[in-house]
Amino acid sequence: MYEMTIRLQADGNRCLYEQIYEHIKQEIKEGKLLAGERLPSTRFLAEYLQVARSTVDYAYGQLLSEGYIEARPYKGHFVCPVEELFRIEDMEFVGTSPWEREKEGDVPREVYIGSRREKVKDLEHEGKYNDHRVIDFSPFDIDMSGFPFGVWKKITKNILSYANSDLFARGESQGDYGLRQTVSRYLHSSRGVNCSPEQIIIGAGNDYLLLLLEKILGPHIHIAMENPTYKRSYQIFRSFGYHIATVDMDECGMEAKMLERQNVDIAYVMPSHQFPMGTVMPIGRRMELLKWAGRAPGRYLIEDDYDSEFRYHGKPIPALQASDQQGRVIYMGTFSKAIAPAIRVGFMVLPETLLHKYLKECSFYSCTVSRIDQSIINEFIREGYFERHLNKMRKIYGAKHELLLEGLQPLKAVFDISGENAGLHILLTSKKGTPEGALVERAAKCRVRVYGLSENMVKDREGSKTVLAGFGGLTNDEIREGLERLRRAWLDAE
Amino acid sequence: MYEMTIRLQADGNRCLYEQIYEHIKQEIKEGKLLAGERLPSTRFLAEYLQVARSTVDYAYGQLLSEGYIEARPYKGHFVCPVEELFRIEDMEFVGTSPWEREKEGDVPREVYIGSRREKVKDLEHEGKYNDHRVIDFSPFDIDMSGFPFGVWKKITKNILSYANSDLFARGESQGDYGLRQTVSRYLHSSRGVNCSPEQIIIGAGNDYLLLLLEKILGPHIHIAMENPTYKRSYQIFRSFGYHIATVDMDECGMEAKMLERQNVDIAYVMPSHQFPMGTVMPIGRRMELLKWAGRAPGRYLIEDDYDSEFRYHGKPIPALQASDQQGRVIYMGTFSKAIAPAIRVGFMVLPETLLHKYLKECSFYSCTVSRIDQSIINEFIREGYFERHLNKMRKIYGAKHELLLEGLQPLKAVFDISGENAGLHILLTSKKGTPEGALVERAAKCRVRVYGLSENMVKDREGSKTVLAGFGGLTNDEIREGLERLRRAWLDAE
Repeated sequence: MYEMTIRLQADGNRCLYEQIYEHIKQEIKEGKLLAGERLPSTRFLAEYLQVARSTVDYAYGQLLSEGYIEARPYKGHFVCPVEELFRIEDMEFVGTSPWEREKEGDVPREVYIGSRREKVKDLEHEGKYNDHRVIDFSPFDIDMSGFPFGVWKKITKNILSYANSDLFARGESQGDYGLRQTVSRYLHSSRGVNCSPEQIIIGAGNDYLLLLLEKILGPHIHIAMENPTYKRSYQIFRSFGYHIATVDMDECGMEAKMLERQNVDIAYVMPSHQFPMGTVMPIGRRMELLKWAGRAPGRYLIEDDYDSEFRYHGKPIPALQASDQQGRVIYMGTFSKAIAPAIRVGFMVLPETLLHKYLKECSFYSCTVSRIDQSIINEFIREGYFERHLNKMRKIYGAKHELLLEGLQPLKAVFDISGENAGLHILLTSKKGTPEGALVERAAKCRVRVYGLSENMVKDREGSKTVLAGFGGLTNDEIREGLERLRRAWLDAE
Repeated sequence: MYEMTIRLQADGNRCLYEQIYEHIKQEIKEGKLLAGERLPSTRFLAEYLQVARSTVDYAYGQLLSEGYIEARPYKGHFVCPVEELFRIEDMEFVGTSPWEREKEGDVPREVYIGSRREKVKDLEHEGKYNDHRVIDFSPFDIDMSGFPFGVWKKITKNILSYANSDLFARGESQGDYGLRQTVSRYLHSSRGVNCSPEQIIIGAGNDYLLLLLEKILGPHIHIAMENPTYKRSYQIFRSFGYHIATVDMDECGMEAKMLERQNVDIAYVMPSHQFPMGTVMPIGRRMELLKWAGRAPGRYLIEDDYDSEFRYHGKPIPALQASDQQGRVIYMGTFSKAIAPAIRVGFMVLPETLLHKYLKECSFYSCTVSRIDQSIINEFIREGYFERHLNKMRKIYGAKHELLLEGLQPLKAVFDISGENAGLHILLTSKKGTPEGALVERAAKCRVRVYGLSENMVKDREGSKTVLAGFGGLTNDEIREGLERLRRAWLDAE
């Protein structure tokens, strides 16, 4: 067992639980406490440090909530793999700990809201699953129970308190420089993206940013998309009148050789976690795509990094943009998935050539995000709340993900499971070749909604036997009950 | 003098000043108190009603601030012309008076902020005009000193207090139905616009809404614009690759006969207050334009009603859409001018044919305004704050406008003044034919910024002799000093 030496200071500058939390967190970050290592029991540590047990409980609770440690029933607390932790290490401005902020009176306690709310929901639902409520395994829903409403409100209030007419005046077209600085640091530290704040454009969601990008790229674009792909982007490109070529995928993602054969200028890809397939593009394929883009002027890759934050196994995957040496990647991301869908804040990183075009031809389009919302997001990230929120959500989603995979064990005889390393959904493919339509229909009869893969296919060349099951918006009990119903729906029939 | 009979109730249900305020407001609205009529002095009324003088002062202050009455130095208080008052009469939900809301503890006093802030600013500037500060008569700046920050913060706080995860979830593509209901009622009562909430699309500013409209209208559009016109819309249409035809204006606006000769599908007009000319399009010309649109399928008029709220003489001008019988008008408006530029909320009303196309082809574009911002705007209008704010701003802008026109008297010998009935700027045209460049340059030498009309010309067929002078963002003292400098710059030279 790990031996802990904490010099606790009782001078009142920092609470005891804060000192314990900070110490353990630091040890984990520095690799002195290794993944899988067991922490001393709270009872032992409290006696050892001569503090109340609740003090240690509180410190562990915070570490749990932020994803640094995990609890295993009857076994104790263990250190989580540190390379899986979302970190914004290089961001100089993440300074104060949550307790320091709390002492200053500007942070309500938020730590357990996620699980608490969920519990409330579970209790409400208990014994009600025999009713006619449909359990919806939507791949698009997210869990809002973990959202730090209190912090959000507090930041909003603070910003409005100091707001003067400047904040209500027209801002910069690309978004406030301060927010762009924050986003560029965040993207660098968490995704390896190399960009200056000058390259960033803040906009009200990806749909809008694509509308703006269309104006920057100019007319008559031929674009390649993965098949299957994200349907809304496909609809958007179609509404642009783009000539859309579909490129099939293998287990590494978009097939670069097939791309070569297409007469296209742009390829739209999701290398970190392809939707809907869940494919992670390995570095070799990435280099092939970058080479393709570099071979002719005017070729670009649009990297849609829509949900890179949630990954359950292995190291975080850096963005494709991180490997781009020739300025060929247009990087797009959003806070809608990681924070909340209603927070209409996305960002686009333009390579130099396109930035030049934007500044010359399109910079008169005014920013679509209010300066107040920009300030709130900026504070949320700068003050470290975003990092904490992501770690908390990774933990919540990780638990649901595990629950789902466990519950799917009995279905493994008749289904292949894929896309299980990241994101908020998995894919189930019938080994017996049952068409997706039949799978969706049988599930619906048992009051469960799953989604046919073909809804995301641009060209349906062969009958799909695959369905998508998302878990982001469901409670643990709903997942359990939904799986029970799916087993009934599919196993009895197969 | 008007004889007042108020039955004051001392039962504590309503404050005394509230009863006085409500009574006088009602009398004005019902036409019992006529425009120009003098109110009793506060001293007289206080004695007559047997209340403290401060009670009457407070009631008059509220009426002043909302624009129902005006104060003339050494003469007393007079009723403002009622038809010029902005009213949202038919909106059933405007119920509670400001005091009732205050009693419920949800409204901070906002009444005097406008003038107070301005005074502060004036004091700061006093005696400093000999420094090198430039006075900028920008036609785009607005006065933020009248913005009800307190109310805005309070509404935001209330909304966030009751916010649940629904408010942070994805909303409807067209915007929340509740807000669309409110906007449709507002447009009907204040602008005569006939539309259902279903026809409205909420979006983050006009630029975005035009981007969306482009997708609805489809490619290869030929559009007619007034010359001169609003430059940003011109840039936007150009970035769409539209074929743009310019149509000259006479004193009634876009010349319908010239429009006939153009091979265009769409005409973009600002009938209520053309930018930059300030022209108000009379009903005859409106009918000609509507007839033009009705003569061929696929023809539409885009009505940009960007600042219809501020009008100083005569009755409010209804929207062109109000006269549209055949569904040919696309109506666009924004809250950026009347509330604050940073409030990125605009709206577009689609005629049935285009609504059908939108629903079929473009409704997947997600709404660009956060649901929180939508809720704030909705409350702001529903609770009557918008109406009060507009009346207050009309009063503030009206005073500045008058100050500007008075100060321009000495320049009338050498300048024609136009566009003086509405909006936040006027036009000055040199009678001697001095080119605008020389006018701008001479003004700049005296540290005043004015704007050449040609900046808004699409085709500059002859050398412009006209400059624009806006007053929205200037204090009274800045306007006075700016005019003094302009007289020096232009009269000495002419």
